[in-house]
Amino acid sequence: MPVKPTERVLAIDIGGTKLAVGVVDSGGRVLESLRGATPQSIVPDGGELILRTLLGLIGELKTDPAQFVGVGVGCGGPMRWPQGEVSPLNIEAWRGFPLRARLAEAFPGLPVRVHNDAVCLAVAEHWRGAGQNTQDMLGMVVSTGVGGGLILGGRLIDGRTGNAGHIGHMIVHADEPLCACGAIGCLEAVASGPRLTGWAAEQGWRPGVPAQQRAGRELVDDARRGHPIALTALRRAGRALGLAIASSTVLCDVEVVAIGGGLSQAGPLLFDPLEATLRERLGLEFARGVRVVPAAFGQESGLVGAAALIVHPERYWAPGD
Amino acid sequence: MPVKPTERVLAIDIGGTKLAVGVVDSGGRVLESLRGATPQSIVPDGGELILRTLLGLIGELKTDPAQFVGVGVGCGGPMRWPQGEVSPLNIEAWRGFPLRARLAEAFPGLPVRVHNDAVCLAVAEHWRGAGQNTQDMLGMVVSTGVGGGLILGGRLIDGRTGNAGHIGHMIVHADEPLCACGAIGCLEAVASGPRLTGWAAEQGWRPGVPAQQRAGRELVDDARRGHPIALTALRRAGRALGLAIASSTVLCDVEVVAIGGGLSQAGPLLFDPLEATLRERLGLEFARGVRVVPAAFGQESGLVGAAALIVHPERYWAPGD
Repeated sequence: MPVKPTERVLAIDIGGTKLAVGVVDSGGRVLESLRGATPQSIVPDGGELILRTLLGLIGELKTDPAQFVGVGVGCGGPMRWPQGEVSPLNIEAWRGFPLRARLAEAFPGLPVRVHNDAVCLAVAEHWRGAGQNTQDMLGMVVSTGVGGGLILGGRLIDGRTGNAGHIGHMIVHADEPLCACGAIGCLEAVASGPRLTGWAAEQGWRPGVPAQQRAGRELVDDARRGHPIALTALRRAGRALGLAIASSTVLCDVEVVAIGGGLSQAGPLLFDPLEATLRERLGLEFARGVRVVPAAFGQESGLVGAAALIVHPERYWAPGD
Repeated sequence: MPVKPTERVLAIDIGGTKLAVGVVDSGGRVLESLRGATPQSIVPDGGELILRTLLGLIGELKTDPAQFVGVGVGCGGPMRWPQGEVSPLNIEAWRGFPLRARLAEAFPGLPVRVHNDAVCLAVAEHWRGAGQNTQDMLGMVVSTGVGGGLILGGRLIDGRTGNAGHIGHMIVHADEPLCACGAIGCLEAVASGPRLTGWAAEQGWRPGVPAQQRAGRELVDDARRGHPIALTALRRAGRALGLAIASSTVLCDVEVVAIGGGLSQAGPLLFDPLEATLRERLGLEFARGVRVVPAAFGQESGLVGAAALIVHPERYWAPGD
């Protein structure tokens, strides 16, 4: 059952560089939130250090913890789901870390639910964002990685292992490039921020600048100033996104695709080639009705989506406990 | 609610070349069935002729119509859904034909439910076939066209317009071939029977034989005898199917993909290159657990799936009436 309007959810969003915690009410409003850096040091108890840092951040929230009716968590994948044993790609100190069980110990008597952070973004957009009036949508994040979540028939789709929504590993190229997952031609290997700036650098964009200093934001800024390689790079990403979205649309008959994440800030430089590819690759009438829109939430999407796991389990938490 | 075990469903399967009718019990057993040719003549009342032929065939069934608890129908798409106004690509006399309404007139007081024929195949495989022990599967038919249906979280996925499952129009090639739907690089434009035999003919298979006499079955027979072009054609189809299945698997996290239809009879000549492509294109651990298997049902799948719309509406008929 949905929680009552006056109730408060403790929401947590865990990524490789930042930890965010907040209090979200049952209407999806973020009442307060705090952010901190994810500890990076690989010490023997590095995993415990991250958990202590997280609990410390929660302790700084002003809301009385006695008010919390549940704990919702979005975390980078992969994870064993719904057990919530997490092994985020970019948090090396957590490998099979029993995040859900440890938080359940810290908050006895409360439901604790953990899902993929990209899934939480999609859930936030469905609950209170760009997809709130549809039953069938795809939410995507295009940033350091490319991820997503599917809501079909008004419910979050989990799949066999809780990993549905991995649109970043749909195949968009025939013979290259090699993806970090081991496969060939994945969307993420073309359109993620690092792969995109890497490709642009190979073509001669910002020669001499070390790889880790070539940020996606600068690529977008350069494209806005008319830099031809930066423009081509964004067209290439837009085209790859368009191919994956076309295939997702015919397979799942979604009404809305909401795209968030840093690279979505490129606006028409990314969305125009995406849309052109989509129109070229969608022949069936039903599919041509799909709308691709920017995500409505920014940084808060992770917290809002995590809270939705607690507020609306009938839509967003199928495991039932 | 599921119907009682002793109850009988009138099941109908309508394609461009054949009409099939049958009586299916609530356990999914086909108690009797009859098949007839779909009338082809384009006369002024050609649409009515098809309906009369269908009702005549139903009249020949031995089961007392008073026993029927509902009418389930699978029909070629596209259609307005759930209204059941059908415009099957290969039945020219039916354009916006109100099939569901006309059958409701013919069987007053009974629920009548119409869905896409490829969706019915997927439903049959989930209910009583190769996917009966999973919550998450893709059912496919590879024949004159390439179609499918998705069951996720134990329920049939309809999508916004009832068209979810159109895997034949996922994009698998970058720049060619043009598909009948108007898009470029669709799976169906590579792997359907007619496109496959057409491609083989262009490469020199059976020169001088008219196109309509080059059947997929003969291509498969020739491949079994070692004909190099026929073998290459099946490898090409298997690879295209593998690409689309890889993308579907990461997006929907399915456990099983069940493939039926005429071309699936090619066995390892099709499934081996499909599997090889899948292993090359699935890097993520969760996705590598997918199993691709031949469909368990043959010709009867349409009738069994159509009956399931009546027997298990809680899983297979979301519209609710």
